[in-house]
Amino acid sequence: MKTPTVLFFPDNVAVQVEPGTSLLTAASMAGIELKSNCGGGGTCGRCLVRVKDGRIRNISAGKIAAKARQAGLLLACQALVEGNVVVEIPRDSRLDEHVVLLGEKEILAEQDEELSGDYPFHPLCRQVQLTVSEPTLTGNASDLSRLETALRRELDCGKIHISLPLLRSLAEVLRRGDWKVTVTVAQLDGCADIVRLEPGHASQKSLGLAVDIGTTTVVLYLVDLLTGITLGKKGTYNKQARYGDDVISRIIHATERKGGLQDLHQAVINTVNQLISELFAQSQVSGEDVHMVLVAGNTTMTHLFLGLTPKYIRLEPYIPLVSAAPPVRAAELGLSVNPTAFVACFPSVASYVGGDIVSGTLLTNMAKSEKVTLFIDIGTNGEMVLGNRDWLVAAACSAGPAFEGGGITFGMRAMKGAIERVQIDPETFEVTVSTIGNMKPMGICGSGLIDCLAKLHEAGVIDRAGKLQTDIDTPRMRKGDDGFEFVLVFGDLTECGKDIVLTGSDIKNLLRAKGAIYAGIRCLLRAVQLEQEAIEKVIIAGGFGNFINIRDAVNIGLLPDLPAGKYSFIGNSSVKGARLALLSQEAYREAQNLGNSMTYLELSAGNEFMDEFVSALFLPHTDLSLFPTVAAKK
Amino acid sequence: MKTPTVLFFPDNVAVQVEPGTSLLTAASMAGIELKSNCGGGGTCGRCLVRVKDGRIRNISAGKIAAKARQAGLLLACQALVEGNVVVEIPRDSRLDEHVVLLGEKEILAEQDEELSGDYPFHPLCRQVQLTVSEPTLTGNASDLSRLETALRRELDCGKIHISLPLLRSLAEVLRRGDWKVTVTVAQLDGCADIVRLEPGHASQKSLGLAVDIGTTTVVLYLVDLLTGITLGKKGTYNKQARYGDDVISRIIHATERKGGLQDLHQAVINTVNQLISELFAQSQVSGEDVHMVLVAGNTTMTHLFLGLTPKYIRLEPYIPLVSAAPPVRAAELGLSVNPTAFVACFPSVASYVGGDIVSGTLLTNMAKSEKVTLFIDIGTNGEMVLGNRDWLVAAACSAGPAFEGGGITFGMRAMKGAIERVQIDPETFEVTVSTIGNMKPMGICGSGLIDCLAKLHEAGVIDRAGKLQTDIDTPRMRKGDDGFEFVLVFGDLTECGKDIVLTGSDIKNLLRAKGAIYAGIRCLLRAVQLEQEAIEKVIIAGGFGNFINIRDAVNIGLLPDLPAGKYSFIGNSSVKGARLALLSQEAYREAQNLGNSMTYLELSAGNEFMDEFVSALFLPHTDLSLFPTVAAKK
Repeated sequence: MKTPTVLFFPDNVAVQVEPGTSLLTAASMAGIELKSNCGGGGTCGRCLVRVKDGRIRNISAGKIAAKARQAGLLLACQALVEGNVVVEIPRDSRLDEHVVLLGEKEILAEQDEELSGDYPFHPLCRQVQLTVSEPTLTGNASDLSRLETALRRELDCGKIHISLPLLRSLAEVLRRGDWKVTVTVAQLDGCADIVRLEPGHASQKSLGLAVDIGTTTVVLYLVDLLTGITLGKKGTYNKQARYGDDVISRIIHATERKGGLQDLHQAVINTVNQLISELFAQSQVSGEDVHMVLVAGNTTMTHLFLGLTPKYIRLEPYIPLVSAAPPVRAAELGLSVNPTAFVACFPSVASYVGGDIVSGTLLTNMAKSEKVTLFIDIGTNGEMVLGNRDWLVAAACSAGPAFEGGGITFGMRAMKGAIERVQIDPETFEVTVSTIGNMKPMGICGSGLIDCLAKLHEAGVIDRAGKLQTDIDTPRMRKGDDGFEFVLVFGDLTECGKDIVLTGSDIKNLLRAKGAIYAGIRCLLRAVQLEQEAIEKVIIAGGFGNFINIRDAVNIGLLPDLPAGKYSFIGNSSVKGARLALLSQEAYREAQNLGNSMTYLELSAGNEFMDEFVSALFLPHTDLSLFPTVAAKK
Repeated sequence: MKTPTVLFFPDNVAVQVEPGTSLLTAASMAGIELKSNCGGGGTCGRCLVRVKDGRIRNISAGKIAAKARQAGLLLACQALVEGNVVVEIPRDSRLDEHVVLLGEKEILAEQDEELSGDYPFHPLCRQVQLTVSEPTLTGNASDLSRLETALRRELDCGKIHISLPLLRSLAEVLRRGDWKVTVTVAQLDGCADIVRLEPGHASQKSLGLAVDIGTTTVVLYLVDLLTGITLGKKGTYNKQARYGDDVISRIIHATERKGGLQDLHQAVINTVNQLISELFAQSQVSGEDVHMVLVAGNTTMTHLFLGLTPKYIRLEPYIPLVSAAPPVRAAELGLSVNPTAFVACFPSVASYVGGDIVSGTLLTNMAKSEKVTLFIDIGTNGEMVLGNRDWLVAAACSAGPAFEGGGITFGMRAMKGAIERVQIDPETFEVTVSTIGNMKPMGICGSGLIDCLAKLHEAGVIDRAGKLQTDIDTPRMRKGDDGFEFVLVFGDLTECGKDIVLTGSDIKNLLRAKGAIYAGIRCLLRAVQLEQEAIEKVIIAGGFGNFINIRDAVNIGLLPDLPAGKYSFIGNSSVKGARLALLSQEAYREAQNLGNSMTYLELSAGNEFMDEFVSALFLPHTDLSLFPTVAAKK
């Protein structure tokens, strides 16, 4: 039997695959990433494609909407290639990179602040132009000794390390440059590691990459280490998404599938390498000039990036293999930068409070402030740090992906076409929405969902327990496939032609998400025996954070009832903290300290969190005294 | 044209080679090492073979003795394969390993002293059996942190380093061993480098290799790092010999031939690997258990071992690429031991005073002694160190290979059949010789040559300038191909059937060799403004040193005229010093200090050495007041 060919339209890309390969895998081999959150299990219903011609075998129908089935669509993950196939990929099924980038760009642009004033400009990698003393019969120290002597005149450092390959080049480099040499040195821990040697006083170029590896997206900043200027920014979806939507499903894939760890490791390396090549093309720089890569990610992402098993993160008592991983060389990971470049990862605090939070905490500067600060990063997980320069306590609660659009019928990420604001007339129950980019609505993003919940409650569409009031008089309240639902936008006004609805189960998911975060905050406060009024500052991170309406978030009981002036947003604090540490050895050292000095509160130990969680499953809360301004409005 | 086959007899080994390959190279490919000192240049006349059948093309006759040519022999390096060839290799042309080993074994056996009492037993590599605390919900530090904590309880160390591959195995190793783990740790510079992780409390095994890389021979000791016991010793010829006899011809090969550096690097690695495999087979140990390799070699050998160019060692102002080379991993060099094992080289003092001398100086303990000590290693070069605990000054003089048998018509190394003692009747000029192993004489080794020179002068066969007295009445004095010569043994009594003679040019070479060494000693003394009587102790190293007759050496003016009681022998101090440092971190550190603290005297700078050298070209010296006991005998 000949190897079947799969041709994808409208891309017009063909790949040859073994019989029995799923169309999802075939698409990935063709460089086309499909939406898929369930790890190819047939349950998320997103990887919809249409087979135009050829033979496939369906393992199962999978969880697919009736309408989609009627439209001739099937799930790519459930369709196995049996012979040559022609496949059409609908626009909706694609992980459309350009949309993501646009979204990221808008977010990043708003927060393009300069390097934090608290740390000196003292990059992790320096380039020094040395003139090495010329040897004589009496001054006959070795080439390496003379290089070290010259380097120590320029640099305050402990031991100087040089690798065998660079050492092998030293004699000729020195002589070709007539005893002038440009040395690139990494300083991660007081030692000086030579990462590059160039003859003469070469035109200097030394770049670094700040990398945020999120479960869903990966963002890179290309930073000029000589000037501190950010030369470019890129973000895209983490290619690991096809193996599962959240860290737990990734860990399961890594540990239970043969080659699973390697799949995930390679997927994130490929993601970073793709961004690198795009950034380099755009900025016209060469990978050879990148000497330092600083990575911030949650604990599982950091493990997968380094190829370390995350297995025991998931199993009680939730033990990561490393918290402070040793720096490695780019060649060990196959990153498309200078092979001798250092790749360092931010330390994590615990299995569910990772380097991204350490990086964010660094950026907030809260560990140097007198003010009691609450730092929250709301993503798939809700991670939070409370404290000041004297103490820091951190926790994580699994809020679920609701605020990123996961588990919500019409949930989507904050990109063009996403509903972000909602008005509901309490008399007529008529709904007015506004979308990102003022486009036809495609779905609802996190900030829209928060707004929605607040407004539905205000208008009396749901009660304090989140229950849909099925007796209200509007065609928007109706019975759907999954019980009662409320129509936000009718199909004639939406991009996809379908009615955009919020179901009872969507609302339950949202309540659980907001309840988990608020319960986490309560547990942190109880751990340090403070009332919420003691919080002097709240800093919210995450792409989502920029669009959130604080008043709405307080109204639904997601965030504590504090004056709006105490709140501020910080954007993608993970990548920005990484940039900060790239540019300041002192900041890098502070990050190492933060990894050690935060007290981790394991919320799954004991009943406290569960009690708080149950109390928080109301709008805004069972205990209204915690939300005085909300209670006052009633 | 088909690839020609070369069949070697009596080995009965065949290899296929490209047309134009020399028989010397073909033999090497067949695993047969021929004697060859000139780098295949056709000038040393040693790689004699006989073509029994087939087509070869002779580039040139090369420098070949008339008798050899008459016997149908030709130089393998000058004979290029043109078709299938059958070649016979005479016994004399082989680098016969067994003979060498026997010789080495005898030497080693005499000096099998235990670890120097001055240093504590504190090996460079330790194996510790740890019980790592089992993680709990509250004691939830990472696997690596818990390993580090347990390790620090056992070990006094600074930073702990672990490589990415070992880190990747850590989670499973800990759990497979039920939180018991055996960790092998190298401690070279205060840090702890983890080189191996094994689950459970494995039966411990940790081995080290002490390696002496000489220009001519390579010697290995296999050392048990847990007990300090030496498990085995092996020595063989340095396979680099085919690229040249001395460091200068090796440097020329490395720098002027395409791929020359790689040739020499690979040749010495192959030599070490061959010894390793022989040692392992003999001792029934596995390469996996070798975690530390400590190498002592002269500066050029150290460079070639690490694959570093020795080019500038040869060119004024004689600059090595490194003096203290950083430790590397075995995998980087392709050594057949545990790939994560450390390979460290003794530092050198200068281009011609290398790690072998530092190792020897360590072994002599002179840097901790009050007594002014002179340490001399007589090999192809004469290297010497003078000093005590307050100061050390080192120098090297190119004595040439005469005392190793090089450049002497019947010179050979100290192995069975070598003449080592000579008696000459002053009346009849009859000669009585004794050989190593009491075999038929094959040639003269270094100690024999010294004895010979002394006795020839005593008997009046040569004058104080070394000139042969051609008018003496004996058939032993005759005119040969190269002018006058003196017959030591007639052919009817020798192994090869040829007369063993000493020519006028042999004697000149010997005078130059002894003169260079004595001049070096004089220069050292002048540099510190001491008279030779100030020397309280003379320690002589080198395989050669064990057989030398001190009285003879003083009589010819090779060594200073000091009481015999001040002299002692130390054997192969290079490999023994390496063993000492393997077993004691303090000794290893002391070696690092020695590399820095010795003052190097460059003898080629200024006229002093040349003046001393010219004065020393007499028997014993122009200035007889320097040799009072010799003068007194006259």
